[in-house]
Amino acid sequence: MKPFDSLGLKFVENRLLLLDQRLLPHEVVWIDVRHPKEMVTCIQTLATRGAPLIGVSAAASLALYAENGANRDEIAQAAQLLRSSRPTAVNLVWAIDKMLETDLTSENLSRMADEIIERETLMCDQMGEKGSDLIQEGESILTHCNTGGLATCGIGTALGVIRRAHEKGKNIHVYVDETRPLLQGGRLTTWELEQLDIPYTLICDNMAAALMRDGKIQRVLTGADRVAVNGDFANKIGTYSAAVNAHHHGIPFHPVAPLTTVDPHCPTGKEIPIEERQADEVRGLANKDICWAPKTSPVYNPAFDVTPVELVTSLILDEGVLDQRSLINGELKQLVERSETHVGNHRRNRV
Amino acid sequence: MKPFDSLGLKFVENRLLLLDQRLLPHEVVWIDVRHPKEMVTCIQTLATRGAPLIGVSAAASLALYAENGANRDEIAQAAQLLRSSRPTAVNLVWAIDKMLETDLTSENLSRMADEIIERETLMCDQMGEKGSDLIQEGESILTHCNTGGLATCGIGTALGVIRRAHEKGKNIHVYVDETRPLLQGGRLTTWELEQLDIPYTLICDNMAAALMRDGKIQRVLTGADRVAVNGDFANKIGTYSAAVNAHHHGIPFHPVAPLTTVDPHCPTGKEIPIEERQADEVRGLANKDICWAPKTSPVYNPAFDVTPVELVTSLILDEGVLDQRSLINGELKQLVERSETHVGNHRRNRV
Repeated sequence: MKPFDSLGLKFVENRLLLLDQRLLPHEVVWIDVRHPKEMVTCIQTLATRGAPLIGVSAAASLALYAENGANRDEIAQAAQLLRSSRPTAVNLVWAIDKMLETDLTSENLSRMADEIIERETLMCDQMGEKGSDLIQEGESILTHCNTGGLATCGIGTALGVIRRAHEKGKNIHVYVDETRPLLQGGRLTTWELEQLDIPYTLICDNMAAALMRDGKIQRVLTGADRVAVNGDFANKIGTYSAAVNAHHHGIPFHPVAPLTTVDPHCPTGKEIPIEERQADEVRGLANKDICWAPKTSPVYNPAFDVTPVELVTSLILDEGVLDQRSLINGELKQLVERSETHVGNHRRNRV
Repeated sequence: MKPFDSLGLKFVENRLLLLDQRLLPHEVVWIDVRHPKEMVTCIQTLATRGAPLIGVSAAASLALYAENGANRDEIAQAAQLLRSSRPTAVNLVWAIDKMLETDLTSENLSRMADEIIERETLMCDQMGEKGSDLIQEGESILTHCNTGGLATCGIGTALGVIRRAHEKGKNIHVYVDETRPLLQGGRLTTWELEQLDIPYTLICDNMAAALMRDGKIQRVLTGADRVAVNGDFANKIGTYSAAVNAHHHGIPFHPVAPLTTVDPHCPTGKEIPIEERQADEVRGLANKDICWAPKTSPVYNPAFDVTPVELVTSLILDEGVLDQRSLINGELKQLVERSETHVGNHRRNRV
């Protein structure tokens, strides 16, 4: 594998180092991942997170395993372990399947890992470039969850657009939704923005509407976990509330995602399944064993919500920006169909 | 003083007992408050909270002090201490000033405390009765913050309406916003609903919009900290977001408050000042000394937001229900002016 160095994962001097995101923002600890089994543990214990970063981490760990002399059987076994370490992670399955398309030699596995890393990095750069053109001088931008270098191996999706706008000298300010229940905004996005020296203000999710009314937010950028062909999309719970509030106040709202996030098997958002997570996350801080609610409180804890295309000003893709009218006119479908021939068979694996 | 027994405060066998709300929902501990100085500490350390309950607690503690033989000077001194224990608490100032209108004899202070308690309890009953008439069989109701027996000495405001609807057998379900940053919904409203055996589901604030879109919420009830004469009102941060979301989904939205919450000196919501609180509340759990964000994160932490009358379906008062059209037509102003002559001079003290 070629050396690379991203915010959450790096390969330097033949060591694969993974940033332990559980300890952020207070401690920066790199885990030296020597074996795919260790990577499986890192993925399952959420030391690493973010769908694209998980895929890349798994692929890199498999390539390193081969470089260190594992045989075909060991590699195939490790691939299955990695592939099933988080059942709903679409990018993980895609990345491992790309690796398994090779002849499993060290040379070809390394080349495929390099390709995956380069491709993910490039897609981020493209979204960042195209999206940042939309940002006006001096804007304050609301963002939700974490969509930056800790979620991808590049500059990120929504946060990548923010980063590029900052680098272009657009003098922006970021309002960060803390993003209950798992607090990816409060813990990770704040930390990333500090690394990048981008001015920001942390708020609770329920404060964004009041800021909009006060004229303090000019734009909303979020990621997207899955985009339906009609432009509806699923993303971290709370995204829909931000979209409704943006709509009410006439503020532009943009999901940012690579074209690979579009699921050709979902004609609309209604077909996107919504995962429900454990109640303890809402009763308190599940990862710190803190419960502030009655211990058996009935809880509803959807991980995602669906935002309809009617609330989307434009969708920022690596392959271009589609406004609401284009989305409603079916241009996303055309783009996906044209791209299918290039991307090959990975879409079948994603079903 | 006459004996009384409410959810957060009781006077039994000559002891004034205050529920320590800091320990809820996991521990139910009553503090035996023997001296006004102890009550000042309880108020300042948030052992007790909720504007009406604070006022009642202070008045009761002053009456008990007189009953236990304090002289005029001691009583006057204690009154000043109590009056200034939380500078922004309008009801506290009002209650102490009512006490100071008496001749400071034990008998008259006790009678005034009884009157204040009875009056607050009655106002809650009236809001509960009038508001619950609006609730339809089988509704799911979203509420924000804590507005029940832990915030008043009666059944509460918004939660009082919910309680009466439940008692009337309307078969309701309650969705409880956890209410970041101080989690009054997650900690206190859940506990109250369990005491009352009312079915509920706890959610994060950012989930309410998705529930509305799924048709799972039929009505929103909140309290109000201050109501402007035109029907705009300030309430716990996050109320405005809930109102925007309710409006977008065509769901009725009702603030619930006694007429004494209307501030005749605020023609509109623009004149209501918004208190900003300490950053550590948003960086983590300030009262538990937990910080999950970077330790010096810039934060915006308004305690309240303002919801304009355009988003109010009707305002539920102890003296009646005013719909949006009536509010816009100035009927609240008329109601306040008519009531001014009854309530006497307390409004001047509230400025």
